[in-house]
Amino acid sequence: MGHRKEGAGIPGEFELIRRIGHALPEPDPSVLLGVGDDAAAVVPSPGMTILLTTDTFVEGVDFDVTFSSWRQIGWKCMAANYSDIAAMGGVPRHALTTLCLPAHRTMEDVEELYAGFHDLAGHAGHPVSIVGGDLSSTDGPTVISITVSGEAAEERITRRSGARAGDILCVTGHLGASETGLRLLRSEREQPAAGSPASQGPVIQGPAERSDAERAGPEQSAEQLAEQSSELFEGVLRRHRTPVPRVREGVLLANSGWVRAMIDVSDGLSSDALHVGRGSGVGLNLDGNALPIAEETRRAMAALRINPVGTALESGEEFELLCAVAPEGVDRLAKELAERTGTPLNPIGECLSADQGWTITDRAGPRPLTPKGYEHFSG
Amino acid sequence: MGHRKEGAGIPGEFELIRRIGHALPEPDPSVLLGVGDDAAAVVPSPGMTILLTTDTFVEGVDFDVTFSSWRQIGWKCMAANYSDIAAMGGVPRHALTTLCLPAHRTMEDVEELYAGFHDLAGHAGHPVSIVGGDLSSTDGPTVISITVSGEAAEERITRRSGARAGDILCVTGHLGASETGLRLLRSEREQPAAGSPASQGPVIQGPAERSDAERAGPEQSAEQLAEQSSELFEGVLRRHRTPVPRVREGVLLANSGWVRAMIDVSDGLSSDALHVGRGSGVGLNLDGNALPIAEETRRAMAALRINPVGTALESGEEFELLCAVAPEGVDRLAKELAERTGTPLNPIGECLSADQGWTITDRAGPRPLTPKGYEHFSG
Repeated sequence: MGHRKEGAGIPGEFELIRRIGHALPEPDPSVLLGVGDDAAAVVPSPGMTILLTTDTFVEGVDFDVTFSSWRQIGWKCMAANYSDIAAMGGVPRHALTTLCLPAHRTMEDVEELYAGFHDLAGHAGHPVSIVGGDLSSTDGPTVISITVSGEAAEERITRRSGARAGDILCVTGHLGASETGLRLLRSEREQPAAGSPASQGPVIQGPAERSDAERAGPEQSAEQLAEQSSELFEGVLRRHRTPVPRVREGVLLANSGWVRAMIDVSDGLSSDALHVGRGSGVGLNLDGNALPIAEETRRAMAALRINPVGTALESGEEFELLCAVAPEGVDRLAKELAERTGTPLNPIGECLSADQGWTITDRAGPRPLTPKGYEHFSG
Repeated sequence: MGHRKEGAGIPGEFELIRRIGHALPEPDPSVLLGVGDDAAAVVPSPGMTILLTTDTFVEGVDFDVTFSSWRQIGWKCMAANYSDIAAMGGVPRHALTTLCLPAHRTMEDVEELYAGFHDLAGHAGHPVSIVGGDLSSTDGPTVISITVSGEAAEERITRRSGARAGDILCVTGHLGASETGLRLLRSEREQPAAGSPASQGPVIQGPAERSDAERAGPEQSAEQLAEQSSELFEGVLRRHRTPVPRVREGVLLANSGWVRAMIDVSDGLSSDALHVGRGSGVGLNLDGNALPIAEETRRAMAALRINPVGTALESGEEFELLCAVAPEGVDRLAKELAERTGTPLNPIGECLSADQGWTITDRAGPRPLTPKGYEHFSG
């Protein structure tokens, strides 16, 4: 830390982070030395294992400033890191935040971004101290890179690799809203000027996506959909812009003794289920009819004419937790999670012996599960 | 970690890091869980404080692929992080490495970069385990972002803020070679085609830089200088491309009990000395005649006609250690450091009371010290 040049209009890194960086309203006794020296110094809790994760977000690849405010982008970038710690059963503690800024970014953008970091920390109930970072100028897109360190007791850490044949696959909350929200926003952007002939046509989607889609009754224009989406689908858009990582849920699941493997749904349910399958050396069968999709999300999917199951399988950055649970614990765990956190836990499949492979079963029968959903999506 | 899209020609992040990432030839018992889960899990040494640092490097801003190989760039990026840990008196332990790659970057580039990470770890005598990271595509320049965690005993941590009036400012090794090496490389690039009239002229430098410069005898053409530099100034170029962080030296200095404040020379000696002055609330006077500049560097400075003292003050990414030493310990500390590590420690100034301000004194008398060298450079 500390060798960076300053961009136009943006103060130096230490000044910047000193001004806006601290996520905690109160001094954090674990921070011996925060922003302003060559490295931060933090005191780990005795006997705890340190969890380290990092996620990087590139403008135009990982986020779109026309779809989200800088404050929402800040929230989501920090949420991705929290979610990785949550998936291990840990609690986030300290963060380093790095920005590569093109010359046209303003101090206001950066302050909003940090406000988003703080919002998330406050909402997730586990504020972290931002103890350092780096700042660079760039001729390219804005890059936001965050490292979070967390803590967990070694014996409570939930890896991807602990699932056994017979375990029940369960997922917290609901799926599909992140991708559906993105498609709503894209559909709004692609809306032609009002009154033009094209504005009367249906929302355009690829044929594979349309094939199984539920129908939204009378056809709507893209314009109508755009007008409606921010009102009708406010919850879906919120899930896309400011998803809530499941930190309290992760700790409870990891401490229950019934969860043998856990991962967060960040690449998409199918990809992440396959990570557990491969990591644990087990087969998997997902129940396509059991994927929890919220009612508002289903309505948005219908309006967009996208396949609910396919979308729920593909949708990344959900930040729900997917876990392999000992069969005898499923009901009690779901009850306990709902009581203590308000978050549902739903069984969505089971772990099988490795030779049974990776499948998803719905009304049409079993089909191979691929990283991007059904087999026919990737062909 | 783990939600990133894959770039063209580059495998996924886990596959990539699994293939090339581990810096340790032997398994590291402190790593419970490395690459491949949502977060890494590492076990801190009992009773030690965790040091966290991060540095980011943007192509075209922080490095130039026409001046250094990817292997050298990898070395230098990792060295910057090691140097931050060294400046605290700590030892680096674990790293997270993140890359944002444009489509034209190849797997070979990335392998070379990782080879550079490993080279540095081997050379510095403190291999770190690369336990995770992230990978993103970008439409902009390559971005390399590294986080390193290290360890130190709390009571041995050397901050910027501990210097007292009367302390002697000392620096390890030599100064000025990093910037001089960069200027040699730029001078080579600016060399006109052989035989053109312009190729007979002197190396062009700004008047301020030329004013106090030592002279290189008969004037040379840029072409001649370029041909000579890789032979004559091989050590200077090496210091620019693959600087060695002073990890063993940092530990020895921190453990000596005589060092009250320490910082690495990453922004440039004048900037970094001012960080100590401000952080400690003391005045400073540097002795412009005492700055240690290696003989080869002096010769290169003369050939380039740049001011040795000004360049030594400005030159960043030196990764030498600047420390405030209790006066009674200077001689014994320098002797001990030289005996145990081979690295010289030279007094270059002293700490004063705050009201005496920040100055540099040379043959011309005392002048105000500014972040970019002498006052007249910034005016």
